[in-house]
Amino acid sequence: MKIYDWPTGPYPARVRIALAEKNLQSSVEFVPVNLWKGEHKRLAFLARNYSGTLPVLELDNGICLAECTAITVYLDALAGEPTLTGRTPLEKGVIQMMTKRAEIEMLDAISVYFHHATPGLGPDVEVYQNQEWGLRQRDKALRGMHYFDGVLRKQPFIAGDAFSMADIAVIGGFIFAKAVELPIPQECEALLTWFARMQERPSVRAQLAIVPPKH
Amino acid sequence: MKIYDWPTGPYPARVRIALAEKNLQSSVEFVPVNLWKGEHKRLAFLARNYSGTLPVLELDNGICLAECTAITVYLDALAGEPTLTGRTPLEKGVIQMMTKRAEIEMLDAISVYFHHATPGLGPDVEVYQNQEWGLRQRDKALRGMHYFDGVLRKQPFIAGDAFSMADIAVIGGFIFAKAVELPIPQECEALLTWFARMQERPSVRAQLAIVPPKH
Repeated sequence: MKIYDWPTGPYPARVRIALAEKNLQSSVEFVPVNLWKGEHKRLAFLARNYSGTLPVLELDNGICLAECTAITVYLDALAGEPTLTGRTPLEKGVIQMMTKRAEIEMLDAISVYFHHATPGLGPDVEVYQNQEWGLRQRDKALRGMHYFDGVLRKQPFIAGDAFSMADIAVIGGFIFAKAVELPIPQECEALLTWFARMQERPSVRAQLAIVPPKH
Repeated sequence: MKIYDWPTGPYPARVRIALAEKNLQSSVEFVPVNLWKGEHKRLAFLARNYSGTLPVLELDNGICLAECTAITVYLDALAGEPTLTGRTPLEKGVIQMMTKRAEIEMLDAISVYFHHATPGLGPDVEVYQNQEWGLRQRDKALRGMHYFDGVLRKQPFIAGDAFSMADIAVIGGFIFAKAVELPIPQECEALLTWFARMQERPSVRAQLAIVPPKH
């Protein structure tokens, strides 16, 4: 298997953490796609993922899987009992919901803020920006942080009693927030405590320790 | 189980089609939430789904599942072999990817167009509009239709050789396109032929036959 990604990107981080949780890193060859040069928007890459986003998992037969949730569902089903995407129907449903909610309300919102209301990946890549929309999404992400703080005041993990793909999605949100210098509000104590606890996991610690490559 | 929805809404349609495919309609009580009066943005509903979107599945114990993919994954896992979300790891991954892609590239893009560049649900509900963003999303949806047309020139269903949740997501896109009077380009012959074939399914035909309730 190959993973096309950028090692420190917030979305690539989600799949790298999932790989580490499943102990599958050594089955994968990582191929860097230089976001800062816009390589993810070129035809060669778009043939692998029409949406032009990282990461993409390419199987040995050439089939390409894009979208973090899809890749994680695939990896989690590969061997043995699922540990990231739920075992019972209800666990599966709640984890899918909370993962999507983490994207809508935090991670994707920060991404839109980055690409539209900051210099983003630079003028050669950001060929269209809508600053007003970007700033709205920043505010949405801040509200989202308060929402997840409320969730974590009632339960230890984003989707309930166990670590899952939904926690990884919110960790992706933290990684993106740090990259764009959007501080997590101090009053979100449960969220901050949870993130400190997440960093005790080797999968998360290893990801956060990666030094960004030169671009 | 209860489903909070609006019977002819494009997202509610996805779950109603999934319910019909699973023969589960009779296990569900439908509770209308009037989109046109903004009932999905009121506190009572937001307690069921923070994101303020329809549909929501409420279980008998009060747990609420939002997000069409999450609800479909739950329903599909409830009884017997999955028929909408894949059986093998690869099927699961590809179906998740193509469902998400149908959202990003068509259904969600049309939704943003509707809420931002048309009168949408009216001035009382659409308290903020970004017309430029809405028009960009309309153009993205039109490109997405061409992309899915290309997919269907190579395979009979959106995610491969079998009907799945990904087909249902694109059907949701057709329903929304019709509602906003965005015609599917005539040159998308494979896509139009596929949609004609989809309407032979009782689940889809029944959904398309619903008369919109008064609002």
